[in-house]
Amino acid sequence: MRFDTCDNPKFIAGHNNRDKIIKNKNTMAKEVTKRSDNYSQWYDNLVVKADLAERSAVRGCMVIKPYGYAIWEKMQDVLDKMFKDTGHQNAYFPLFIPKSFLSREAEHVEGFAKECAVVTHHRLMADPNGNGVVVDPSAKLEEELIVRPTSETIIWNTYKNWVTSWRDLPILCNQWANVVRWEMRTRLFLRTAEFLWQEGHTAHATRQEAEEETMKMVNVYADFARNYMAVPVVVGHKSPNERFAGALDTMTIEALMQDGKALQAGTSHFLGQNFAKAFDVMFTNKEGKQEYVWATSWGVSTRLMGALIMAHGDDNGLVLPPKLAPIQVVMVPITGKDEAVNNAILDKMDSFKKELEAKGISVKIDSRDTLRPGFKFAEWELKGVPVRLAMGGRDLENGTVELARRDTCEKSSHQQEGIADVIAALLDDIQSNIYAKALKFRDESIRKVDTWEEFKEEITKGGFLLCHWDGTPETEEKIKEETKATIRCIPVDSAVCEEEGTCIYSGKPSSRRVLFAISY
Amino acid sequence: MRFDTCDNPKFIAGHNNRDKIIKNKNTMAKEVTKRSDNYSQWYDNLVVKADLAERSAVRGCMVIKPYGYAIWEKMQDVLDKMFKDTGHQNAYFPLFIPKSFLSREAEHVEGFAKECAVVTHHRLMADPNGNGVVVDPSAKLEEELIVRPTSETIIWNTYKNWVTSWRDLPILCNQWANVVRWEMRTRLFLRTAEFLWQEGHTAHATRQEAEEETMKMVNVYADFARNYMAVPVVVGHKSPNERFAGALDTMTIEALMQDGKALQAGTSHFLGQNFAKAFDVMFTNKEGKQEYVWATSWGVSTRLMGALIMAHGDDNGLVLPPKLAPIQVVMVPITGKDEAVNNAILDKMDSFKKELEAKGISVKIDSRDTLRPGFKFAEWELKGVPVRLAMGGRDLENGTVELARRDTCEKSSHQQEGIADVIAALLDDIQSNIYAKALKFRDESIRKVDTWEEFKEEITKGGFLLCHWDGTPETEEKIKEETKATIRCIPVDSAVCEEEGTCIYSGKPSSRRVLFAISY
Repeated sequence: MRFDTCDNPKFIAGHNNRDKIIKNKNTMAKEVTKRSDNYSQWYDNLVVKADLAERSAVRGCMVIKPYGYAIWEKMQDVLDKMFKDTGHQNAYFPLFIPKSFLSREAEHVEGFAKECAVVTHHRLMADPNGNGVVVDPSAKLEEELIVRPTSETIIWNTYKNWVTSWRDLPILCNQWANVVRWEMRTRLFLRTAEFLWQEGHTAHATRQEAEEETMKMVNVYADFARNYMAVPVVVGHKSPNERFAGALDTMTIEALMQDGKALQAGTSHFLGQNFAKAFDVMFTNKEGKQEYVWATSWGVSTRLMGALIMAHGDDNGLVLPPKLAPIQVVMVPITGKDEAVNNAILDKMDSFKKELEAKGISVKIDSRDTLRPGFKFAEWELKGVPVRLAMGGRDLENGTVELARRDTCEKSSHQQEGIADVIAALLDDIQSNIYAKALKFRDESIRKVDTWEEFKEEITKGGFLLCHWDGTPETEEKIKEETKATIRCIPVDSAVCEEEGTCIYSGKPSSRRVLFAISY
Repeated sequence: MRFDTCDNPKFIAGHNNRDKIIKNKNTMAKEVTKRSDNYSQWYDNLVVKADLAERSAVRGCMVIKPYGYAIWEKMQDVLDKMFKDTGHQNAYFPLFIPKSFLSREAEHVEGFAKECAVVTHHRLMADPNGNGVVVDPSAKLEEELIVRPTSETIIWNTYKNWVTSWRDLPILCNQWANVVRWEMRTRLFLRTAEFLWQEGHTAHATRQEAEEETMKMVNVYADFARNYMAVPVVVGHKSPNERFAGALDTMTIEALMQDGKALQAGTSHFLGQNFAKAFDVMFTNKEGKQEYVWATSWGVSTRLMGALIMAHGDDNGLVLPPKLAPIQVVMVPITGKDEAVNNAILDKMDSFKKELEAKGISVKIDSRDTLRPGFKFAEWELKGVPVRLAMGGRDLENGTVELARRDTCEKSSHQQEGIADVIAALLDDIQSNIYAKALKFRDESIRKVDTWEEFKEEITKGGFLLCHWDGTPETEEKIKEETKATIRCIPVDSAVCEEEGTCIYSGKPSSRRVLFAISY
């Protein structure tokens, strides 16, 4: 993390130009709004036009389209392996939570009650008035069921039966699931009523072990964000105001989007003994005494898709890091009238494809004959495919191909001989370059700010502001009211943040800078 | 499929002896009810004691425990690859279905209305009387939402926007999801209110292509059942009575459990243009004319777990086919007082483990030092691990190990040299043997029956009865009323089934035998 002051970062901004939306689904040229014209619209546009997701007929719920889902599957594969490598197992717990369970942990219910989908009946019947079906009033549930907004309560009610002695601990479970939070304002991937996620729920014999788990998992997320998503993140603790409902500590990874807004990309919670107490989960420790179990939970969701899109995309579309691209190389034949030449080109491409696949690289040959190469180029750029290989009749004669890299849009000509190695190296280079670019942008966007006047001005420019804070929720609340900025985290990197100073707002003494930003 | 008559199959039967249930979760020796005492109880017992699943606090919903989920993950991996190899892509559609969507297809709503979980509100609030939280009456939804029992309606409402011309077809989507059907009588894995499944939903330009897809996918399921689950199945068409609500044809794979009952393990539906008409999904065909799109859907669920358990399990517990076993080989050190010897045994096991893992074989070394080897043997037998390797001080001296295979419970001594190859071959042999055993049992349980008197007697003995049927729903209904038997399918294997005869019940002419059984 570099903390150079960047006086005038040129963030991509704006929420105007709503009239530029391109809505016609049949528009052949899939133009995307420019980021500089309207970043927010660029995002919405891109999600739909790159075939990642779309709004459904159900309020706030999205349809994740095959191409978008393929990226999510890549993310799942990597994360699942990371979880298993750190000793976790998958399991599955019920979709529904009895209403009374939610109430058991006071802060928890407070945090989720206002956005719950509630199941009240279990049957429909023919409308006596003849209009389709209506809810059968005789099929009212004795106790309402909540569609899980998160699963701490149902899981801790289950763990109660799994734990008797210290020998039963730790329990290290994860589940991949859908959850529902009835958000009023939704955006594809970033905030939807239903979303997909994983939620880890662990149970430990000691506080220390649970705290270590909390830290371990936030670091797994940071590792994933940096090394697979190519998104730099700041790891830190949430301030009490921003903690998960029911947690003693919430750790977070915070990323910066190209418009200068922060995005919380994953959280890991130390839950203390709150849920063990609420669900009466005790164990006999090695000394033979009864104790409450210590807990953590941690999750990332399809929101990561939003982070991926916004961190790297450009005005031509998505820019996918090779490690998460469903198609890493697309081959576009530049065909002509000579069928023999066309077939020879496709044969060559087939042989390249085999070579690349043997290296574990995924390849698509776009041999559709109803579309011009230029159209195909634009489509695969829109979809963020890292490397494009094009080849025409002259290339065939010369033994060459043309490679285009999506991140820089540079083209270059190469000998066919050894092309698989060239492409493999290029993919690595693109992965590093995307990260380096995002890191440079992020680092240039972190500024130390020491006066309230400066803060109010700087925060409108976007980016992370590293400032002193007096540690009180009241001050945080007032800063939010006046500027919309929140404390994204109290970074763990003490070398950078520990420093005596005075609170930017109250002027009271502070021993540590924290990270402010306006966030998604 | 052999159709030898088996006059007196000794099925494992009975629903008595309820008092033998072992309920104490702390029972160290995890005894399972014997199949011959009470097959049904043996099953329930085994599911819980082998740590596969348990009932949750939510009516009819199960918790899938890590070991059970690991088997389901293996199934998912194989099936997902089979779907992708046949050109399908994954996507994700909303959990909720607007009530009005369900009503659009008349048979469909009729089939599902009686078992729907209905969301009516989107917020809870503090109880004015101070008792936890209550549903906020002001947060009533304008239109109720149904938790998907299956997704044809929401998906065809989505496809409407994806299809304009024949060029947009076929659409070959699958989703892995949870669904809810409010069943009144539930059993772990076999019939639960919430279950996990995959549902494929495809859209085609022609009737023929959709019919071919329906057949292709039922064959994928049959292939999976036979070659991975080691469960023989009969492929056939459902009679109209047993069709999916809204389908023109339902194909099924039917398996036989050890108690002589049939289990429907997967279905593939040809939906005709029913859903396209209900959701107005038309396309311009190559001739420039507007036509409705043709549809299929197909699914298998966590019910397969039930089939796996019931097809192969014995009185010692699960018997897992190696291809779906999360742990294929367990190693149990027979330790003594000499720590140096104990460590040498564990070192040897570590080196075997590495060798086996290099061959893609999953291994667990059970080095828990608080448990006796005999206890461990019983536990891994209960969990169905295909191969057990045991090694003590004398084996160390002699350069030998003891192998035990779970399917036959045979033990044998082997040289350590080349043991990985021996185990790899043994796993293959176990996979084949489990299938051969199940196939023999199934084939011996299929009998041709030609008179109603014989039918009534034979059906009480369990198994499949291959009989003539006059093709009317009325006859099928009457047979069901009198004997509980249903037509499991009209087998596709015409060489075996096409034959002139007279209906077992009505005496009317019939040109084909169909398969009857009492089913789960």
